[in-house]
Amino acid sequence: MKRLALGAVIVLVSAQASAQSNPAALAAREWRDRNERAVLEELVEFLSIPNVTRDRAAIQRNAEFIVRMMARRGIQARPVTQGTANPIVFGEIRTPGATRTIAFYAHYDGQPVEETQWASPPFNPTLRTRPIDEGGEVVPLAALGSSVDPEARLYARSASDDKAPIMALMAAIDVIREAGLRLKSNIKFVFEGEEEALSPNLESMLTANRELFAADLWLIIDGPLHQTRRPLIYFGARGMVRLDVTVYGARTELHAGHYGNWAPNPALMLARLLASMRDDDGRVLIQGFYDDVEPLSDTERRAIVDAPTIDQDLMRDLWLGSTEGAPATLAEVITRPALTIRGLASARVGAQAVSVIPSTATASLILSLVKGMDPARTRDRVVNHIRDQGYFVVEEAPTPEVRRSHTRVAWVQTAQRGVGAVRTPMDLPVAREVIAIVEAVRGPAVKLPNMGGTLPLADIERPLGTRTITVPIVNHDNNQHSFDENLRIQNLWDGIELLAALLCM
Amino acid sequence: MKRLALGAVIVLVSAQASAQSNPAALAAREWRDRNERAVLEELVEFLSIPNVTRDRAAIQRNAEFIVRMMARRGIQARPVTQGTANPIVFGEIRTPGATRTIAFYAHYDGQPVEETQWASPPFNPTLRTRPIDEGGEVVPLAALGSSVDPEARLYARSASDDKAPIMALMAAIDVIREAGLRLKSNIKFVFEGEEEALSPNLESMLTANRELFAADLWLIIDGPLHQTRRPLIYFGARGMVRLDVTVYGARTELHAGHYGNWAPNPALMLARLLASMRDDDGRVLIQGFYDDVEPLSDTERRAIVDAPTIDQDLMRDLWLGSTEGAPATLAEVITRPALTIRGLASARVGAQAVSVIPSTATASLILSLVKGMDPARTRDRVVNHIRDQGYFVVEEAPTPEVRRSHTRVAWVQTAQRGVGAVRTPMDLPVAREVIAIVEAVRGPAVKLPNMGGTLPLADIERPLGTRTITVPIVNHDNNQHSFDENLRIQNLWDGIELLAALLCM
Repeated sequence: MKRLALGAVIVLVSAQASAQSNPAALAAREWRDRNERAVLEELVEFLSIPNVTRDRAAIQRNAEFIVRMMARRGIQARPVTQGTANPIVFGEIRTPGATRTIAFYAHYDGQPVEETQWASPPFNPTLRTRPIDEGGEVVPLAALGSSVDPEARLYARSASDDKAPIMALMAAIDVIREAGLRLKSNIKFVFEGEEEALSPNLESMLTANRELFAADLWLIIDGPLHQTRRPLIYFGARGMVRLDVTVYGARTELHAGHYGNWAPNPALMLARLLASMRDDDGRVLIQGFYDDVEPLSDTERRAIVDAPTIDQDLMRDLWLGSTEGAPATLAEVITRPALTIRGLASARVGAQAVSVIPSTATASLILSLVKGMDPARTRDRVVNHIRDQGYFVVEEAPTPEVRRSHTRVAWVQTAQRGVGAVRTPMDLPVAREVIAIVEAVRGPAVKLPNMGGTLPLADIERPLGTRTITVPIVNHDNNQHSFDENLRIQNLWDGIELLAALLCM
Repeated sequence: MKRLALGAVIVLVSAQASAQSNPAALAAREWRDRNERAVLEELVEFLSIPNVTRDRAAIQRNAEFIVRMMARRGIQARPVTQGTANPIVFGEIRTPGATRTIAFYAHYDGQPVEETQWASPPFNPTLRTRPIDEGGEVVPLAALGSSVDPEARLYARSASDDKAPIMALMAAIDVIREAGLRLKSNIKFVFEGEEEALSPNLESMLTANRELFAADLWLIIDGPLHQTRRPLIYFGARGMVRLDVTVYGARTELHAGHYGNWAPNPALMLARLLASMRDDDGRVLIQGFYDDVEPLSDTERRAIVDAPTIDQDLMRDLWLGSTEGAPATLAEVITRPALTIRGLASARVGAQAVSVIPSTATASLILSLVKGMDPARTRDRVVNHIRDQGYFVVEEAPTPEVRRSHTRVAWVQTAQRGVGAVRTPMDLPVAREVIAIVEAVRGPAVKLPNMGGTLPLADIERPLGTRTITVPIVNHDNNQHSFDENLRIQNLWDGIELLAALLCM
């Protein structure tokens, strides 16, 4: 059997064994067999609408599309707006006699795209027989039969993050309506439009509409499944602070020969500054960085030990000869804070390189926070560290006078506010209930104290006093946030089954 | 008086005082007054032909253009070719009874261009009243009168480096023909077409055509004048080795949240590697880097002391609060070897940044060599240093297996061979003769043991056994190699006077 991806064998077995113990999931499988092509067509239409967070006109078209998706299914839906924020699309199903409310959250905006890097345009959804790097070939959508190869991949920005979850929820509603299943809870749908910009307005919009958004539990249908393709439940997420640091050489690029050795080299300055922030093992050297970290509970530690260790397989798949923080496993290291360089730029390299001393050098950093760490305080610690390396730190582009009067100048930009980290206790009754449904539908689940990525959980919990649990449905190898983002079709089918069951909880 | 650039006042005075003591220079000034517009038009036509070194079709058009320029002036000219090398355009004036031969060298190829960075397209020559950063406004060429503001700037790739010197030589020939001046030496013209690629074929082409290119002295009309705008004579140049270093993380970009702390971060690895190569003062920390440096002679040391110190003015002009290697001056530090980072790239920064761990990080390095240092040996020392930092070094893109089986992998690319450094003794008789002519025409000259930049002097001296002296004519603030390269018009006029005098030596 051709190796498709990590643990594909495990998946196929568990998928066949599942669903049958939950009537909603069973109905979903039966319904899906008859509606594969229609679901895919609706998703393709949805993915064809560009959705980069700051593209306001396109974001508006997405919001209108989602309102229509819900309206077609008999759900009252409308955009909730506030000032210049991208709208939250809200929808509701009131269930007579229900004593609790479950909110389903996903976001419809996507990360920026660098079109030239994509194998096919990011907003021209393209189905391929397999992943690109396994030689997947394009399948013209018009040529599709009524059934779709479950190992095919659909390539588009937000194919996984998060338009597939929204589509799966809509299909799950179709299932429930057609099969005449009874809901037990009130259901709310909350589709955010600026999650990829770190949800700058979510907390304030929830605060202004507390009653509308109130729920006993928010289920977050975001993020990837486990690398083994086993079902996965996250009880929290890391927080995040993004900052760009720019350091300066001369006003213009200078001839590297004529001025090399004399004009300060910002690329070297930046290299030395970044090198001072972390050691080779990924340990952050910034004063106080770990001070406020809240330790894991015994339950959480046990969950990490119980999680399957996939590090060796993942290393082989990713062509890695080592990992940071080894021998700690992936499941463990993501419960620690991190400092990641997500990009470097200074003049040019490769064919476009010319023989100059660069004028500036910029690094884009991500601080991944864990429970206990305050975003603003953590950012300040980084800024203090930069000062300790001899930099005069400015918050706006430095003037010529500032540059002339300091040996080293750093511009630290933090355009977006930070997001805090959350961990929901894994032994709450509602947590156990979610675990039971997921495992009944999809088999034994991996349960982790937090995902490595960021979700706006704190912005939901603070204003509403609710709990959040994250139930992903998409494949782990989806290239989320990067180019060639994709969805494995089987994950969409499995997601419909799981969400039908969770809608009936 | 408006401040135009460093030391502009000095220039205007010295320019008025000069020329009159040399008949050829005097004739040149008189001729130029009547021919400014024609010279500029011919130069603009020349600059309109793209000339990036690797653009072979465009390079061919440049070579043909130069052959025509010389033919129009009655000079036998032809392209000299070898294999796939860009042609050298060769021309010759035989002077009856002459006992020596002087070769004039310049190159007609240009550095790559990043069009989007230019204020006007690099191959659409644009005249401006002043430098762009001093508010210079575009002067339509069609609207030019017979005389041109000498402080105007002409923007185009190679406006200074080196098409202006070629144009100035052609104009100087016009002067000599029209004024009926007698030449004393045989004259050869050598215009190279791949200097910006570090002259990969120059030595072998000279070796194959030793007699054709033989001369008692090669005058190199390349590089910028002194920052005070005083005339300048360089008796050598630094050598150069360029190399790109790429280090590796995972096969693809990974979500920074989900894998941050676990997947090795190539941007951080690169920062730590570069930081290990130099200290904050620019001192190179690579084992043996300085071992073979040949010390300066007493004459050379005295020349550096005698050179005007322009460091403070230059720092103000370039918005610098410090320099590397201070308190040593610019004139001194360029006689030392340097390691310059000319570019950094890893994923993306700014608006295009997404939250990933980069897959690769690349630095483009320049090693500036001084006399005594061997290019290949110096490169090997850098490679050994990279190995000493724990890297497995490869010379081709590493395979997945190589990446899986090593903790750290670095791909070191050195596409172009290196160029050695040269210093011609400053007290040779022919050196004194050149100094005397330059000072008679343009006033007291700055004399430096070597320029900071690189010229293919070793590739000329080795096969021909000749000496080289470099006599630049263009403005120091010409943005050579970067975007918005430009020529100050007065430098073109002064250059015609100087070259007319040197043609008559």
